[in-house]
This record gives sequence, C-alpha cells and structure tokens, in this order.
Amino acid sequence: MTGARKGRDLADVGLTALLDPRRIALVGASERPDRAASRPLRFLRDGGFSGDVYPVSASRTSVGGSRAWPSLSALPAVPDHAFIMVGADSVAGVVTECADLGIPVATVLSDGFAGTGTVATARRAALLAAAGPGRVRVLGPSSLGLVDLRRDLRLTANAIFAEPDLPAGDVFVLSQSGSMIGSLVSRGKALGTGFAGLVSVGGELDLSIGEIGLATLSDPGITGYLLFLENNSHARDLAEFCAGAAALGRPVAAFRVGRSGPAAEIALLHTGALAGDDDVADAFLASCGVARVTSLDGLIEVLPALGRVPARSAADKKPAVAVMTTTGGAAAIIVDQLELRGIAVRQPSDAVYAELAAAGFPAAPAPIVDLTLAGTRYEPVSTTLQVLLRSGEFDLVVAVAGSSARLQPELVVAPIIDVAAGGGPVVAFLAPDAPDARARLAAAGVPAFQSPETCADVVAAALGRQAPAARERHFPGGDEEQAETVTLDEEESYRLLRTTGVGGVAAVIAKVSDVLTDPAGIELPFGYPVAVKLLHREVAHKSDVGGVILGVAGPADLARAAASIAETVPARQPGVLADRLLIQPMAEGVGEVLVGYRRDDGVGPVVIVAAGGVMTEVYGDRSVRLAPVTLPEAMQMIGELRYRAVLAGFRGRPRGDVAALAETLVAISRFAAREDVLACEINPLIVGREGTGVHAVDAVAVVRK
Amino acid sequence: MTGARKGRDLADVGLTALLDPRRIALVGASERPDRAASRPLRFLRDGGFSGDVYPVSASRTSVGGSRAWPSLSALPAVPDHAFIMVGADSVAGVVTECADLGIPVATVLSDGFAGTGTVATARRAALLAAAGPGRVRVLGPSSLGLVDLRRDLRLTANAIFAEPDLPAGDVFVLSQSGSMIGSLVSRGKALGTGFAGLVSVGGELDLSIGEIGLATLSDPGITGYLLFLENNSHARDLAEFCAGAAALGRPVAAFRVGRSGPAAEIALLHTGALAGDDDVADAFLASCGVARVTSLDGLIEVLPALGRVPARSAADKKPAVAVMTTTGGAAAIIVDQLELRGIAVRQPSDAVYAELAAAGFPAAPAPIVDLTLAGTRYEPVSTTLQVLLRSGEFDLVVAVAGSSARLQPELVVAPIIDVAAGGGPVVAFLAPDAPDARARLAAAGVPAFQSPETCADVVAAALGRQAPAARERHFPGGDEEQAETVTLDEEESYRLLRTTGVGGVAAVIAKVSDVLTDPAGIELPFGYPVAVKLLHREVAHKSDVGGVILGVAGPADLARAAASIAETVPARQPGVLADRLLIQPMAEGVGEVLVGYRRDDGVGPVVIVAAGGVMTEVYGDRSVRLAPVTLPEAMQMIGELRYRAVLAGFRGRPRGDVAALAETLVAISRFAAREDVLACEINPLIVGREGTGVHAVDAVAVVRK
Repeated sequence: MTGARKGRDLADVGLTALLDPRRIALVGASERPDRAASRPLRFLRDGGFSGDVYPVSASRTSVGGSRAWPSLSALPAVPDHAFIMVGADSVAGVVTECADLGIPVATVLSDGFAGTGTVATARRAALLAAAGPGRVRVLGPSSLGLVDLRRDLRLTANAIFAEPDLPAGDVFVLSQSGSMIGSLVSRGKALGTGFAGLVSVGGELDLSIGEIGLATLSDPGITGYLLFLENNSHARDLAEFCAGAAALGRPVAAFRVGRSGPAAEIALLHTGALAGDDDVADAFLASCGVARVTSLDGLIEVLPALGRVPARSAADKKPAVAVMTTTGGAAAIIVDQLELRGIAVRQPSDAVYAELAAAGFPAAPAPIVDLTLAGTRYEPVSTTLQVLLRSGEFDLVVAVAGSSARLQPELVVAPIIDVAAGGGPVVAFLAPDAPDARARLAAAGVPAFQSPETCADVVAAALGRQAPAARERHFPGGDEEQAETVTLDEEESYRLLRTTGVGGVAAVIAKVSDVLTDPAGIELPFGYPVAVKLLHREVAHKSDVGGVILGVAGPADLARAAASIAETVPARQPGVLADRLLIQPMAEGVGEVLVGYRRDDGVGPVVIVAAGGVMTEVYGDRSVRLAPVTLPEAMQMIGELRYRAVLAGFRGRPRGDVAALAETLVAISRFAAREDVLACEINPLIVGREGTGVHAVDAVAVVRK
Repeated sequence: MTGARKGRDLADVGLTALLDPRRIALVGASERPDRAASRPLRFLRDGGFSGDVYPVSASRTSVGGSRAWPSLSALPAVPDHAFIMVGADSVAGVVTECADLGIPVATVLSDGFAGTGTVATARRAALLAAAGPGRVRVLGPSSLGLVDLRRDLRLTANAIFAEPDLPAGDVFVLSQSGSMIGSLVSRGKALGTGFAGLVSVGGELDLSIGEIGLATLSDPGITGYLLFLENNSHARDLAEFCAGAAALGRPVAAFRVGRSGPAAEIALLHTGALAGDDDVADAFLASCGVARVTSLDGLIEVLPALGRVPARSAADKKPAVAVMTTTGGAAAIIVDQLELRGIAVRQPSDAVYAELAAAGFPAAPAPIVDLTLAGTRYEPVSTTLQVLLRSGEFDLVVAVAGSSARLQPELVVAPIIDVAAGGGPVVAFLAPDAPDARARLAAAGVPAFQSPETCADVVAAALGRQAPAARERHFPGGDEEQAETVTLDEEESYRLLRTTGVGGVAAVIAKVSDVLTDPAGIELPFGYPVAVKLLHREVAHKSDVGGVILGVAGPADLARAAASIAETVPARQPGVLADRLLIQPMAEGVGEVLVGYRRDDGVGPVVIVAAGGVMTEVYGDRSVRLAPVTLPEAMQMIGELRYRAVLAGFRGRPRGDVAALAETLVAISRFAAREDVLACEINPLIVGREGTGVHAVDAVAVVRK
C-alpha cells in the first residue's frame, strides 16, 4: 500500500483540510440515532464546531433536523473534507467525486476493505485509483474519524464524543484502533490527562500514522504523542515522524497489541496489514526513541515520567531504581512488579545510609529504604528522598506512600511534591485509593500511580527508552517487484558470511562417492572426530532428515556416515540427491546460540541473537535489533538473553567468548547495506571459551537470484 | 513459633475478645495527634464504638481528652482486650500484667520483634513466656490492629480508619501486611466492595491467619475471604481454615508478594518468617482451594467471579475462554493479557457460527467473536452471548464493551447484565472509563473490569482455582528437634528410590584400583559406551568437580576415565578420596528433566518436575505440587512445563514417555509418608521414547541419620 504515495514529497502535502477542516461533507449520514452514521453530525453540532457541515444523503432531504443534499456536487460550496459512511462498494465512487470537485481530503468510515479476499482487494484498488496520486488524501478505510478538542472538531463516529465536557490538553493520539480513541479520551479524563487531538487512522491505505504525525509537528499546542498500534506498517513514515518529534523535544510513547501470538492474529484480521512480529516492533520502536508501555493506563500516564528520565544509549549501564517507603507491604508489591519487568531495585550504599543517619533519620540497610510507620512524617520523607536523589546511585526513585496518603497528605505526599518540584527522577506510588493526593501530585507534575502494575510499566518504559541515535536506516522498498530468491547451501552460506567478516570453522567438501570408495584418502586439515553433514541447497533442516552425523571417529566411520546420509535423506525427503558432504572438526564450546539476519517486510533489516537448540523455540529467549548494530548494541543484545548466564560461566564452568559473539552480530548486521541478501542464519554458532572465538557449524542464507 | 501453641485445641479457644471486644485498654496511647499511637483512641471514639475504652499512660492522667489510667491493674474494670503500643522492651511486662489480670487477648502494635538478631529473639521469647500457653492470646507483634466495620470497631493505627463513611460489607480480610488493610478498604470503597472486617496479623507469634479465620467461620455475615500474604507460615492452620470456608461455600482468594526474589527478601525483613518459595506457596494455596491473584485490584475484584466458575480438578481439560466484542482493539488487549497468563482464547466451532447466522446475527469466524460497530446493539449482543454460553464450548466468556459503555449502556452493557443474570460464567471488560456502567454491572453481580490486566488476572485466578480435594496432608512438625541428616551417595539413593517404586538404570559399582589394574576384567551386564561417575556421599555435584566422564568407549578408555576422576576430583575438592566409581550404560532419550522431592519447612512435602540441564536454572521451567500427587496431578504438572513441547515430539522428533515420567512423579511423591526422607532429587531423569520408560542417571537423597 505504501506505493500509492510513491513520488509524493510529504512536505508538499498540506494536511490542513484533514486536521482543521472548515467545510465538512458527511456522505451517508443516517437519520436513525442508533446508527453510528448518525453520530458525526450530532457530535459536530453539539460540540460547537464553527465551520460548515453538509449532510449528503441519497434518499433524504433532511437528516437529523439539518438540510441534506443528494450528492457532493449538489452542495452550495465545495467542502475541504468529505467524511464517507456509505457501503463499501460505493466508496470509490464518492472518492472519484471528491477528486473531480477538488476536495483534498476524504475520511472513510466504511469497512470491508481488509484482508486478502478478492472482494476486499478489488475495493482497495478501486479506492486507490479513485484517490489517484496527489488528488485526494484518504484517511482510512475503517477510520472512526478524528477529533480536535481545542477546536471543537468532533468528526467521528466514536460514541464517547457525545460527551460535552471532554478536557482539551496538549497530548496528541494516533491510533490504529478506532475504538481506542474513545477509551483513551475517557480514561484520560478520569486520570486528569487532556488531549489536543485524536486520530483513528483505520487501514492506512493512504495516510499513515507517521505522515499525520509529521503534519502535526507544526502545531505548537502539542507537547507529546501517544500511539496505539496493531501492526508495523509504514515504518519509514513513523520513523521520520518520531525523529521530528524528538528534534522538538516531544516524547512519543506507544502501546501495541499482539504481544501474544493470538492477539497478533486478531490485529491482522482487523487491519489487513501483515501481522507484525512483536519483537521486530519492539526493536523498531526502540530505534525511534519511542517509549513502549505494555498497559493501556500506562500509555495515558507515561508522558510526565518521560520528562524526568533521560533517554539511554546502548553503552549505558543497566538502570537502577531505589524504592523508598513507609510501608513494607506496598513496597514489596512495587519491587515484585519492577523485578518481573527486569528493572533492578538496588540497595543504597553504606555512604547513603551514613548520610541518612547523620541527618537524624537513620534507616536499616535493606533492599528498600523503609522509614516505617514511625517515619511517616514530613521531615524523614523529605530528607531521605533528597539524599537518595543526590547520591547519584539511582536512575529513578519510587516513593511509596501508605494509608496516610488518603487523609493526611501532609505527612508523605507533601514532601514528595516538594522534593520532586526540582524535576528529579521521582515517581510516587499510593497504596490506598487516594484521589486527592493523586490530583495534587499530578498538578505538581509528579507522576503518581495507584496501580502497582501501571507504575512499574511506566518506570520500565521510561528507563528502557533509547535515544534515537543518528543511524543508518534501510527501509523495505514498498513497491518493488517480489524478487526471485535462492537458498544457498551451507558452504555457499559460509562464503557469503566471510564477505561481511564472519569467519567459519574449517570445512572440507567431499563427494559421497569418493568417501565410499576411499575414505582414508579424504584429506582433512584437522583431526578426527569430525562432523559429517549433507551439503545441499534444498535441505535447510539437515538434522530433521538424517543429514547430520556427529562424532565420526575415523575413516571407516566416515564411510558409514556417508552411506547413512546417502540412504536416509532421499528416503525422508524424496527428490533430493544426497551426493555431497561437508566435513568439519567437532566444535565444543561453552554454549551455542542462533545468530540471524533478515529483511523484515515492515521495518527492514533486523538482526537476532537467541539461545540455541530447543531453547530458541521453547523459551523464545532472544533479542532483536534493527540492523546494522554497533558493538555496544550487540553487547546489550547478548545481555538481554537469559542464556547470558551460561555464556558468563555457569556454575564454575568457563566463560564464553562474548566479545567474539558480539563482533559476529555486528558483522552479520552489515548485510543491511546489501540489497541482495534477504536472510542469513547461523544455527548453531558455538561460543568457545573466552579468547577462543565463536564457530559457525551450520549456516543458511537466502539471496536474490 | 508454631510450637508455642502446641497442645491447644483450636476449637476450645474463644476469640470473641479478639473479634468483638467490649472493654478495650489502649496501653501506651499517645497525646500527640501526629503519632500513630494516638489513632486507636480517636478512631474508636469517632467511629462510634459502643464498648468501653480505657487509655493507659504511664505519664499522663488524660489522653486525647479522655481520662487515662497509670496501669492495667488500676482500671475500673478488667478489659477483655489490651491494645499494646509501648516500646518493644516493655511489651512482655504488659502482657504479664494481662495474664495476671485474666485479660484473654492482647494485640501488640509494637515492632522490634522480627529477624534473627539476639535482641529480637529474646523479645519474642519473653513475649511468649509472658503470654504463656492458654493464658493470653496475642495478635502481632507489629499488628496494625483489627477492624469490624459492622460493629464500629476500629481498633487500629492504620490512618485510613479516620474516615467516617467506610462501607460495611460481607468480605473479611486477613493480612500479613498492616498497611494493606487500609489500602484494601479504600480501594474497595472506590470499587464498590464493602468489608465486614479486616485483621492485620503482624508477625503471627501466636495467633495466625488460619486460626483467626477459623474463629470467623461462625460469623454468618461473612461470605468470602481475602488474604494478603507475605510468607508461608502456619500452613496447617491456614489449610484447616480454608477447608472450613470451603465447607461453608465461602471462597478464599489470596494475593502474595514475593514473586520476584528481591520482594521475597523484603517480606522476610518485615515479618521475620522464613522467605517463602513462591512456587511452594502457589502449590500450597492451590491445594487449599484458594484462588491466587497476582494484582492488588484483582484481589478486591475476584470474589464475584469465583461464584460464576466452578473449581477444577487436575483431571479437567485446560480451560477455554471465548471473547465477544464490538471493538477489535480492546478485545486484542484482553486476548494478549489472557494468553500471557496461559489462558487460551478459543475460536467457537462452526456449529456456533451457524447458530448465530440462523439467529440473524452472523459473525465472521475468527479467534474472537467480533460484532463490529454495526453489532453494537441490544439484540446481537444478547443473542450472541446466549449462544456462546449455551454451546458448552467455553468455561468462561469475556464480553467486551467499547465506547458505547460510557454514555449508552443500553446498547451493550444492558444485554450483558440481562444474560449474566442467570449466573453464567460471564465477565465484562469495559474499554472506556465507564463508572456508571461498571456500577450497574456490579450491582447486578456481574464481574466488570476497566483494567485489562485485572480482568485477565481474575479470569486466570478463577479458572485456575482447584477444588480442595480430600487428600493426605503431611505438615511439618513445628517443634521437633532439628534432626541430624546424612546425604546418600548415588547408589544408595537409587536403592532408596527403588523402595518407593522408582526404578533406576542398570549400574555397576567398581573400585578405582580394580579398574586401573584390570579394566577388561570389570564385568558389565551392558555394552560400551558407558558413563563413568565418582561414587561418593560428599560430592553432590559430581560434574562440577570432574567426577563424570561420558561416552567411555571401551576398557582402555575406562581406565583413562578412572585415572582422570581419581586425580581431578581430589584436586578440585580437597579431602575427598575418589576411590569408587559407578558405571552405567549411556542413556539417550527424547529429553531430560529434573524430578525432586523435599519436605518444605513451611508447607511440608512437595514434589517438583523441571526441564533439565541449564534450563532448570536459566529458565526456571518447573512445576511444584504438595506431595503426594495423583496421576492426573502429575500429568497436569508435566503439562505446565514449557518443555512439554520437547517431550511431546519436537519438530518431527519422537514423543517422550510422558506416562512413565508421570508415574515416577507419583512414586517419588510417596516419600511424603516417610518422615525419614527429607529430600531426593533425580537429575537428570532421561525420558525415553514413548513406551521405553524413563531412566534416572543421577540421584541424591538426604535422610535423617
């Protein structure tokens, strides 16, 4: 779908008519108040929209008490924005009318355009043809519309916007789900967060989240963005927008569904986009400097925290958090939630405890700083918080307030506000329901949470946010022909890997016939035992078809192995002629990993490292980054594996050569610069002892023909 | 600490003076309103307590405007409940006074009794001695007190209870955290949940959660219990209480901190109890029929859901959930959250879709049943929900309401209420903030959630709740002398295992000297290659010290292996004489697991199965149950491992003998009946192909001397 916009210069596209229309046509507006198509007229009128609104109805001369016209061309003036609610098969016709009349923007509420079915595919093609390049910009299809609460623009069918007093604010929402703009605005109201505007982008057949985001950068009333995502489409636009937002100092946060497999499938059904691999989305969003939360309320509550914590680089140490509390139970809940998200709660140093004691508020050394019931007063809380922040030992302090927060905010909540007024990295967790304290904290700009899960989610998102480093980017081409590809055999794959600097283990190619005739005559530049493997382009998973024999002890054994492979493989995978072998020395190491590279359809080149063998698939222990990666990024990836414990020397065993593994990741990620390499995987890569390197003992690559 | 109550018959102990006191002495009541010790007097008075309250102060003749007395013995009447707020070192003296005066119950707010330090240990001993067996029952120390909102009893220092209009209800709270009784009561008020009473049990030096719970079973105003737990102490009492509650049809739900290691450590510091292994707690609570939630709000919101879903047995199939929605985005969030908790969202059968179509409300077959914006009306929602419930294909249906829930509850919320009125397994998730809809649902008894995380947490807890089957229980003895133990060597461990029905692989014991002298003379009832291992009681982790050599190919190799073990082991573990070997055939299987048994200090015998090798420690892939287990329970345990994918035949490899593994689990769990066996572990247990059994290739046991 990206191709539809090919050749357009985004900067040339004025989206004023999208975001700030003055004359709106409502095509297919319904008279029946229980129908969604009746809502936009009502919401615009009741919301006090100051522009003109023209209902268009094929069958009625009035709709909802307003005069209606039979067609766009019959209107008394040319609208600048058409909101289309007709049946799916009539949409293209209306858009053609828009093009003919010079209406620059159309929002399509209608659905029936998603999926791979022939009907939906034909509808999309017709809609794109009608919009034509550069004639009509389309929001949707399946867009629930857009809202600007500052301008009383409620051009939407989302039921929430019947509500008169939705607070306007400075946060802008871009959502791939239409329902969610209502969820976010209502939840934001309850949490004290107001929005400047919200856009439901629907299927993004033309206008994408990134493109609309770019158009909002000139709006000085916006200070930050929230994204609700269901897929990885239009990554290039999104990256460009995020870079622009970062340049203006506006944080971007995202919530994305599809963390579990089944949810990804649902998102596919709803948006028609390719189901995004969640890991890839994670890597992509991180590379854009987006803070990713994993809870809906976290999305609404994350922005104030982002202003208190700097973005991190791959070279930074893992973040450390202090938890200060007057109640052990509530602090333990927060610690649980942080640790479950991989955020370490660190005990302050002895120096910090000494300073606390010197200030007259001693605390018992422990993983959390517990002032206890006796310390539930202004001075101990204020002093302790200041000492913790001053220590430089923590990237963030979570201040926990107990029951006093509800009725006696002067005890714990007031000192938190006073200390946090300086803008330091402090967030507050309130153990009881304490709406007044929460409102006071929010008014003072202090992130304050009542849900421990949301608190930990926001802390993890803020501390996990990366600075969007200036980096090489290789986005997938949108409208290239699907290239013909070829899968290389193991030896060819090794040769390809060597071109980017990944060395392989020594290997000898031998014909099965030669081995069977004179096994002792096969010259090996290494000793027995050896590994013997089928060498064939069409057999990717050699061991699954009996194509790998390990620990071959000598020439006679070699002949037996060759015979077994020559016999077993064709029996299990008919049509394969097992005539060539690859012979390698047996490699033994501290551990084994999978290292891979591929060009993702959505976000472009990515590199992956994963624990090897069954662990890859059973435990999903892996780390993904956009390629190319730097050495610090590669080290960070390895550090994200739970398997790092094995590579770091497990239960007295030797340490693995993690540096060599990181260099291999960097090297394989350089394929990003080569259009012809589509995928490459080393599995397993044996990680030798520290200083002895890594050894690829199987590899496969896919390249363009 | 359990031992202190030894010999008491719980049924004989009247706890009326604990739960419904008529004359309360407040010992150490403070004049200063900013001190916690001033609160109980204020709260009792302002709360309208109808009994007598006597402040006791060593230094003042009046406290908080009330007359105060210098000591308990100076009071005009003997109180039935003393609330003690004096310094830790004065507590035992006050309790002695209670005993002398015949005051049956004392609650101790004072802290300083926790931990293993000599001062704290001495204080505990003094307090127990003062209370004496059967003289004064003690709640605490470090108890924040107790509350009965129906009786205006606010005998607590928790700041929340200054609030006049806390709603009384029928839920009873027992908490190991004192702060949490305030958090729960305030959050409950916001969520529409009222409490009958709340007890902060503190350090449970005498009275335990279970014992207090038992005393409340005669209270007809209680319909369910919420537990906030920090450790596994007093398991026997808790089990007895849970059985009693189950007999009355009162559900029990629990939240427990310590899911992460560090939080467990905090709990340890706060309660002085042994840090509970979270897995063991999980197994224990499940065996008691307790529904365990993992979120604080989930604890408050779980009880109504428990009434709609029957408890399950180990023989039941895994539960299946249907998600019905009018909005894809919100449904995808719920699916994500359910799947992340291991709850499968199942697509309805074709028959269900056919029935929906026949009823005039066709839906597109998909993992979720999506009525779309067009189906956001009473009839489609009502009909679809009824068809899903009637189908019998689902253990629970999650009905998702979109933006309409906020202002137009008649569209989606009303039909959910009407259908759920029948008491079926339905819960509602509201995508927007919709307090009115939520209140309507709650008033109709329909579990309704605004947090997707809380919704999924409650669904998982309800569907995971087990029926508390009548089972053998073996609780740890509280006050037995710490027995002297001995660790058996591998061969002795195999012999012990055989006594309970776990067969080992063939094994030959040989002296190192014999092997070195005449390796070919060692008679083996199996062929080479073999595994050669050190046989020694004092070396538990043989491979860590070079005590295991695998794949030994023949007699010459055997001699080399023996020499290597004899030389390496003493070098790495000085003092060990490596003079005996165990020789076994090499076992190869589909996979390898760890199977273990131990008597836990808190909950008694437990059995564990875990993925073997590095996976045990790196991925923590394991399942724990109280021992003994039945065959269905053992199968359920195996089904909880992610490693089950390997045992079930991974990527075309053969299936493992899961039935034999389950039988081994049952067999090893029978050690529960033997007091002399403290722990036993088989690691690894090789799981052979289906029908070929399992093979223990290493084992260690710890028994009483």
